[in-house]
Amino acid sequence: MSSRSDPREPLRRVAVTGGTHGNEMSGVHLVRHWLRAPGELQRPSFAALPVLANPAAATACRRYLGCDLNRTFTSAFLTAQATPDDPYEVTRARELNQLLGPKGSTGAFDLILDLHNTTANVGTCLIAGSEQEVFVMHLCRHLQLQNPELACRVCLYKRPGEESFHVGSAAQNSLGLELGPQPQGVLRADDLARMRTVVASALDFVELFNWGTAFPAFEMDAYRYLDGVDFPRTADGELAGTVHPQLQDRDFEPLRPGAPIFQMFSGEDVYYQGGSTVYPIFINEAAYYEKGMAFIQTQRISFSVPALP
Amino acid sequence: MSSRSDPREPLRRVAVTGGTHGNEMSGVHLVRHWLRAPGELQRPSFAALPVLANPAAATACRRYLGCDLNRTFTSAFLTAQATPDDPYEVTRARELNQLLGPKGSTGAFDLILDLHNTTANVGTCLIAGSEQEVFVMHLCRHLQLQNPELACRVCLYKRPGEESFHVGSAAQNSLGLELGPQPQGVLRADDLARMRTVVASALDFVELFNWGTAFPAFEMDAYRYLDGVDFPRTADGELAGTVHPQLQDRDFEPLRPGAPIFQMFSGEDVYYQGGSTVYPIFINEAAYYEKGMAFIQTQRISFSVPALP
Repeated sequence: MSSRSDPREPLRRVAVTGGTHGNEMSGVHLVRHWLRAPGELQRPSFAALPVLANPAAATACRRYLGCDLNRTFTSAFLTAQATPDDPYEVTRARELNQLLGPKGSTGAFDLILDLHNTTANVGTCLIAGSEQEVFVMHLCRHLQLQNPELACRVCLYKRPGEESFHVGSAAQNSLGLELGPQPQGVLRADDLARMRTVVASALDFVELFNWGTAFPAFEMDAYRYLDGVDFPRTADGELAGTVHPQLQDRDFEPLRPGAPIFQMFSGEDVYYQGGSTVYPIFINEAAYYEKGMAFIQTQRISFSVPALP
Repeated sequence: MSSRSDPREPLRRVAVTGGTHGNEMSGVHLVRHWLRAPGELQRPSFAALPVLANPAAATACRRYLGCDLNRTFTSAFLTAQATPDDPYEVTRARELNQLLGPKGSTGAFDLILDLHNTTANVGTCLIAGSEQEVFVMHLCRHLQLQNPELACRVCLYKRPGEESFHVGSAAQNSLGLELGPQPQGVLRADDLARMRTVVASALDFVELFNWGTAFPAFEMDAYRYLDGVDFPRTADGELAGTVHPQLQDRDFEPLRPGAPIFQMFSGEDVYYQGGSTVYPIFINEAAYYEKGMAFIQTQRISFSVPALP
């Protein structure tokens, strides 16, 4: 079902992208550091390439300048004729697609690790497309086993038939790392160390794969995206309330029918009206206000992942 | 020593300004709510005016568009001839000075409460000019006594001879409320409730004052600004490290000579070299990276505040 083929050969072309969103500071500053000191990204069988994905936004310490870079890796944007009116990020996406892709081709990079932060209390969150990506599922499993203290959770964002639009989709395989909570524009030492640990483990996994290590089949738990839930708003579109204290910071915990989800400025509570338990994630993520999302509902699923290779 | 005179008459003209920084969400959304439902700001002897200080920055969810509004209330900006090249915030400062000032005049508002958030773990922080502002010191004392669970701390920012430059300086008296930690662009229900509580207490104090209540003398502890400390940087000005985990989130705790303050990306620690204990505040505040401040050093002081009136 995946549009990607799982690798059979050693992975030689690996990139670590940070600053896809210019105010998510762990990735911005790790990549800048690795550009000065690349040894940390080297393994015997390959050297990962550090890439500052959105340098102009990183300089401005904003998520983006013109549009969200992590939504521009569609064939419509990547293949359209360039014009002077293109947003900066559309131009930058084409540059990155030349460097790391071209998307969908066998010449594309083998793997992109794309580094993100969120203001939500997601802990260490691994964002993959779908459970069909066997190599990526094994990478996630390795990160879980190597870092049990981080309780790495796997999220699957891709809807059936939907075209991927994120930076990682330029490569043949990709994994997004979402670490939180960290405010936009803030570089916390603890989050930086955690991001560094996860990236090191991921590169170690590639090294093991490249040496022909056999990875047995296993059962995986994951959270599959359902849909976003907007804040309560006034007739003018202004916020009329915010995330309820009983939901705030409870990412990945079950939300049951009838539980409070919003607290109105006028004082009353708003309750979850759905018919079944969901697992909210990205609760009160700063960047999602403009997208009309107070949180994303997911369902918890389990599935079998076959052995690799 | 203060440039302001403590009030002798009842305060009738009180403003509550939010969104002075457009991504500090407690004030932005409380003011928007109060503009729709002003009753919460009314007391028998006065009605406080809610003011969205920087509406364009609030719409953009950015701290400012052209320059920091909270640094533009100097006579140089306020009295200069307007030009088409003026940053948005300079023009807006002149508008606010017409509405709430003119600064330094007896026609100015009696009191401004200016609402802020910070990404730093300052709790509930009351920002005043100096201990010479007797009315404001009594207001702070009232907030402390009425809200013991909030542990309101008083900070004094004004250096001798320095002209005030913040929004509140348009009025005859002002107090800044800094609540944290809250990420930029995020509206947490707990912080919103806390801000609301503090504003209500402040208006209650004005009401008591207006009715002729006598407030006895008392001893006050406060934190006086000394100077800012920048992050460690490379020769190119990029960050070379960040706030040490042992300093992060420890606002208002004593920092003793020899304690670690930064952790370099290369691994080593940087230690505080000062000769005496200081009390860091605004540790790792997102907006202060561009100002070259990883934290602000303060000294802890105690002083007597005379009775009011």
